[in-house]
Amino acid sequence: MCSHSNGKDRTESKPIIAVTMGDAAGVGPELCLRLLTSRKLPGRAIPLVIGNAVVLERVARAQGLKLPPRVPCFTAVPESLSRPALLDPPDALDGSAVVPGKNRSACGKAAARYITEAVRGCLERRFAALVTAPISKKALNMAGVAFPGHTEMLAALTHTQSYAMLMYSRDISCAFVTCHRSLRSVPESVTAERVVEVAKLAWDNVAILRGRPPRLCLLGLNPHAGEGGLFGDEERRVLLPAMKALARRGIVLEGPLPPDTAFTPQARKRFDCFIAQYHDQGCIPFKMLAFDSGVNITLGLPLIRTSPDHGTAFDIAWQGKVRPDSFFSAYELAVRLAENST
Amino acid sequence: MCSHSNGKDRTESKPIIAVTMGDAAGVGPELCLRLLTSRKLPGRAIPLVIGNAVVLERVARAQGLKLPPRVPCFTAVPESLSRPALLDPPDALDGSAVVPGKNRSACGKAAARYITEAVRGCLERRFAALVTAPISKKALNMAGVAFPGHTEMLAALTHTQSYAMLMYSRDISCAFVTCHRSLRSVPESVTAERVVEVAKLAWDNVAILRGRPPRLCLLGLNPHAGEGGLFGDEERRVLLPAMKALARRGIVLEGPLPPDTAFTPQARKRFDCFIAQYHDQGCIPFKMLAFDSGVNITLGLPLIRTSPDHGTAFDIAWQGKVRPDSFFSAYELAVRLAENST
Repeated sequence: MCSHSNGKDRTESKPIIAVTMGDAAGVGPELCLRLLTSRKLPGRAIPLVIGNAVVLERVARAQGLKLPPRVPCFTAVPESLSRPALLDPPDALDGSAVVPGKNRSACGKAAARYITEAVRGCLERRFAALVTAPISKKALNMAGVAFPGHTEMLAALTHTQSYAMLMYSRDISCAFVTCHRSLRSVPESVTAERVVEVAKLAWDNVAILRGRPPRLCLLGLNPHAGEGGLFGDEERRVLLPAMKALARRGIVLEGPLPPDTAFTPQARKRFDCFIAQYHDQGCIPFKMLAFDSGVNITLGLPLIRTSPDHGTAFDIAWQGKVRPDSFFSAYELAVRLAENST
Repeated sequence: MCSHSNGKDRTESKPIIAVTMGDAAGVGPELCLRLLTSRKLPGRAIPLVIGNAVVLERVARAQGLKLPPRVPCFTAVPESLSRPALLDPPDALDGSAVVPGKNRSACGKAAARYITEAVRGCLERRFAALVTAPISKKALNMAGVAFPGHTEMLAALTHTQSYAMLMYSRDISCAFVTCHRSLRSVPESVTAERVVEVAKLAWDNVAILRGRPPRLCLLGLNPHAGEGGLFGDEERRVLLPAMKALARRGIVLEGPLPPDTAFTPQARKRFDCFIAQYHDQGCIPFKMLAFDSGVNITLGLPLIRTSPDHGTAFDIAWQGKVRPDSFFSAYELAVRLAENST
């Protein structure tokens, strides 16, 4: 046996993609089951679900879905899997007590445990990438886990300071200079260093996803991109210097563009990715065009991580109603990024 | 003869809609000509173009369009017109010297003159409404007219302190709490008083346009509408008190809604008008859905004013390439608002 790296170690083996089940009371379990039994999955990788066997059995039985073979314990995950499998970390959750649609601290604690195990496997190069099913922030907090969401937890677990969110779909993609913060605090958080950081992350990753140097659009912060300084000076003071610094590294963007005309049907064809200055500048157009199919990719982590662009959907959990498109897309993108990572 | 009011005085007469030609070097002249000769116009009103006869003749000749009969001078506009007409204020512009696509101070000066004449006619109730073709801010400034655009000029001419922009289309409409200002200055400008003012204006006017009490959506200022205070407190501190004050006057809104999910195809069906807190929050989705057909309506003026949702388009001026949809829609909405005004 040779030494392994990046989860695709032995010549005959396929990369293993870790898939965390998320909150057991949400739509994560049925999404995992449908992923494991889907015939449309790329055969170049093998999914390993990290979640609760009893919950998955209950959901599988209720919805007539097939349950994959279970891997006995974490340390026993073979270096190469030949087919989709399930890993249930011991003592993580009593699956018989889970009520769909109900926030419980036990579910939050288990969701965090699945993520921790998956991250460890990624960092040890047993897994090539991580796909996360939705978690409940409330259940997480009930369990005393103080992170507002996946991204912050993953950053802490991997000691990552600088990262960025990329929302990706066939029709539109956006990377975010700032994200979950008040609108009032946005202008001070938009610095040239941060714009350079996010644009570089977007440049590298969208190149892999599109298979060519991406056409990036840097959006202005202000209406009309500042209208020559009349409606704000951040374009001149922050964004143009960032573009110059990027150009010196060979990264060319168009911009800063007036945000309101950058997303018209004609204009958006010209770009593979928009660099948005704040949450709603990018999320409004993204969710208009890709509400059911968008994928969230965390850029800047020492591992590949994707997730669907929706939450736990407690109101339809365990009912077989959830659309798996976004989750499947997240898995497919994780495979593509894993294949292209060095 | 009876005394007249609101430009629709005598029983047999039709309301006169003033249509300013805008900047002579832009697409305004051909838009006016196409409006005057359109067969699709509502017959319930008569358009009177205020512009330059020579420019209109030159454009009409080049594009094979018909020129309407000219009204000799401003004061001679009959109280009732029987068919579309042209008013060319004396000494406003030497039309033979105009070069399409070129900014000239003479064009800026004339554009301002057309607006002044139209406003006077509206205030004197000779005209029932005003439709403005695009002006060039640069030409206006070259002529020493210090307004950034139509709206500010109309407010000054009519001594109006509080007004708001409504962008209207079949598929989406937005009224704006703040508009042409830096993003940095938005939060301090979003006050409960201002939100109440804009929501009232939207309520009254969209009711006329939709023919029923409108379903209004108040958008949050912050991402996720503040996420319970985690990403800003303006929703609790400013927007909810404004909604309470509006409810006391019988104006009910839904909100404050997370801005990114309010515009998805499913969500936006539920609303006739969005109250946007800042320019790009409303203009991004509006221009994605209604780039060629949107109409800009200035609410709060003592006259009815609409305009197309595009600029002078100097690059295609006098070439017969401009799409008149937005201008025609602006005219039609002006007629409808005039019929319903008291």
